[in-house]
Parts: sequence; structure tokens; C-alpha cells
Amino acid sequence: MERAVVLLSGGLDSATALAWARARGWECHALTVDYGQRHRIELEAARRVARALGAASQRVVAADLRAIGGSALTDAIEVPRDRDPAAMGHGIPVTYVPARNTVFLGLALGLAETLGARDLVAGMNALDYSGYPDCRPEFVRAFETLARLATRAGVEGGAFEVHTPLMSLDKAGIVRLGASLGVDFGLTHSCYDPADDGAACGRCDACALRLKGFREAGLADPARYAVAPSVPDRG
Amino acid sequence: MERAVVLLSGGLDSATALAWARARGWECHALTVDYGQRHRIELEAARRVARALGAASQRVVAADLRAIGGSALTDAIEVPRDRDPAAMGHGIPVTYVPARNTVFLGLALGLAETLGARDLVAGMNALDYSGYPDCRPEFVRAFETLARLATRAGVEGGAFEVHTPLMSLDKAGIVRLGASLGVDFGLTHSCYDPADDGAACGRCDACALRLKGFREAGLADPARYAVAPSVPDRG
Repeated sequence: MERAVVLLSGGLDSATALAWARARGWECHALTVDYGQRHRIELEAARRVARALGAASQRVVAADLRAIGGSALTDAIEVPRDRDPAAMGHGIPVTYVPARNTVFLGLALGLAETLGARDLVAGMNALDYSGYPDCRPEFVRAFETLARLATRAGVEGGAFEVHTPLMSLDKAGIVRLGASLGVDFGLTHSCYDPADDGAACGRCDACALRLKGFREAGLADPARYAVAPSVPDRG
Repeated sequence: MERAVVLLSGGLDSATALAWARARGWECHALTVDYGQRHRIELEAARRVARALGAASQRVVAADLRAIGGSALTDAIEVPRDRDPAAMGHGIPVTYVPARNTVFLGLALGLAETLGARDLVAGMNALDYSGYPDCRPEFVRAFETLARLATRAGVEGGAFEVHTPLMSLDKAGIVRLGASLGVDFGLTHSCYDPADDGAACGRCDACALRLKGFREAGLADPARYAVAPSVPDRG
């Protein structure tokens, strides 16, 4: 069985990406990065999702991006709330974590090299994304080039492929794809700023995009929210 | 003053790279990665070197490559000893750490983005290197392309430059350059497999290359060795 390394954050995007890779028949090794994110509950969600979707293994690798700072997700910067999802594609928000996907894909590449895998899977998407530069297709292609030059496998003539099955889907499309692949979205966690009991805030960009996705897909979001979601209904 | 991020391992190469960057007049922010290396004493050496060479700051960032394994430097694999330096350019040795420089440069890129720096400095060299694919010029150029696509600075039209002042120098050339820039090599640590008291083994690839470099440069290596170095004299 072909082996793949899947970046798994515990959110609905990466859970859907893992389900997509499993549906291709791949033996999936999930890699979760503990980068010092303030929303620690995400790490627990990743463990649950990996188990539920039949990952062959799951690792949590520490890479402390707090020491680098510069983001509302790792530093003493306020997470924005109540932004209009329609405005999120414009500009790079403070939740952008400098070089996060370069480091994450680098770790996935190292694990792939160790396991003899040539396929990396990640849940990035450029359509309904939050304006992160390292979620764009041109970034992914540049990483593939780098991966070939960085590794023993590349020197020996091999190549790595970075699969991003959600790249051209909007959030509703991701919800539909995940539902069709049997993802239990109740196990996933998306909120950047959850309450102490794990309830999603319903107001950060991640909650707003998620709620918009479920609403447009015509499905109920099983996540638990601390307050009634405040996203305006544009349907 | 222009700011630069310098990858500083605590070895003689990265110490020389830091001295080179300081000699250019740059405000240097040293980044040391605690990747779970078995030779932990390297981290102490990095602190000493950063202080001695006037780095504006020094950070130790944890990125646990032990969870990925696949290398004699992070996993339960024996460090090779008593190899002929002339043979080291052939093949990739077991001390290769999968995707290490991709992760290290990714972390440096994140810090540069946070600090507003556009220059990264690293001590890689392709001539007297130990056969690591991610020490080659083509890898460095591919990383620059990736960096432009991965970052806020790149989206805004900026570019990052990865300086590798040692790329085309052999170990003797690096020793000469470091000496001319006032590097105190007694503060540096190169050995992959030091004794408990910190003495270098004198027999691993890193020791063998270092000793060869000092010998060919006609200088004494101030490092403390556990045993009389066993490298054959080819002078």
C-alpha cells in the first residue's frame, strides 16, 4: 500500500484532506505540529480525527513558533472577531503565522523521507482562505521543487508530490466533500480562540468561515459554540 | 543598521558565518535550533559564540526532529567513526537529518519576517560537506524562491536573500576565514558524539573534517579531544 504523510491540525480542512487520502487507499501517517498555538485543544482534536479516520500512525511534533512570534496565534496579539467573511480574502490578517507552512511541510518532508513516502497531503485552500501567502498553489509548487533538491530521495531521482485536494474548494465545498467521505465534523476543532471548556467562540475568522461553509452547504455544524454565532446571514 | 537572521549551531562553520555577517555591519539575530540532537553541548556553544561575536539577540527554538528520526544525530543509529575524509563526499551518510535545513531555514524565515529582516545567513558548504543534499547551492536558490512565495514580505514585493559565505570554501578555507575575522574557535563545538564531559571524540565525520581543516590551514585546533585524533596525516 502506498504511504502518505498527512498534515493534520485537527480542523475540518485537514480532517477532510485525511479522509480524501484514505479514500485513495493510501496508508496515511498523520503529522500534527505543536507549534505553541494558543488553541491547544486542536491537538486533542487531531488525535481523535486520526483515530476515527484510520490513520496508520499519528505523531505530534513540537516546533515552537512562539519563540518567533509575529502572529495572533502564537504571540500576545488579539485574535480578530466579528469580521465579515467576504472581507477576509483581502490582506493578510494578524492570525498569519510567519513561515508556518514552510516549517510544517518541512517536517512532513522529513517524515516522508524517513518512512519512504513520496506523497504529502495538506488541507490548504486558496479560495476561501484567510489571505495566507503560504496557502497558494504557487507556494505548493515551489515547495515540491525544494523537496526534490533537499532530500536523499530527490538525489536518487525521486520526487515528492504535495497534494492539496481542497485548494480550489470554498468552505461549503470542503464541508460537502468531508461529509461525502464520512468525516465526523463533531471531532474537529477550528476556533482560534476557544473558551476554557473547549467551546468555539463563533466570532474569529476560523469560526466565521466554518459557519459560512456549513450554512452554504445546507448542513448543521456539530461543533459546540460558546455564544450564538454572530455571522450575518447572507443566504 | 540592516538586520539579518543567522542560523547558529555552535559549530565552527556557523560561527564563521556569523562573524562574516557581523563584519558586513549587520545587526545579527542568531537562531539556534534545538532539534533533539544527541550532541546537546552544541546548544551551549551557540550561546557562547553569539555573545562573543556580538549578536544582537540569540534564540533557541525547539523543533523536535527526534519524532521524525531517520538519522544518527537524532535516532538510535550509530555515528560513524574513523572514515577517511577523502571518502566523505561520496554518498549521503547516516548523519544526514531528513529535511533539516528546510525546517531550519523555515524557522529563520519566520523570524526574519517577524523582525523585518530580508537577509538570512547560514554556514552551509558544498565543497568539504558530508554529502548532505540540503547543503547545495541549488537547494539554497530554491529556498529563496519559496521564501518569496511563502511570506507577507514577498506578497508585498520584497525578497529574501540566503547568504552562504562558506559555500565554496573547503574546511581549511573556513578556518582561515574564521581566524581572519577573529572567531575564537575554542568556543565552538563540532563533534557529533562528544564525551559526557564535552570532549570531542576526534573520530566522527565532523571531527575528522574539522581536524583536516585546521591541519591544512596550518593552525592549531583549540578544541579538547577525548583521544589523540586518529585522522591519517595526508599533508
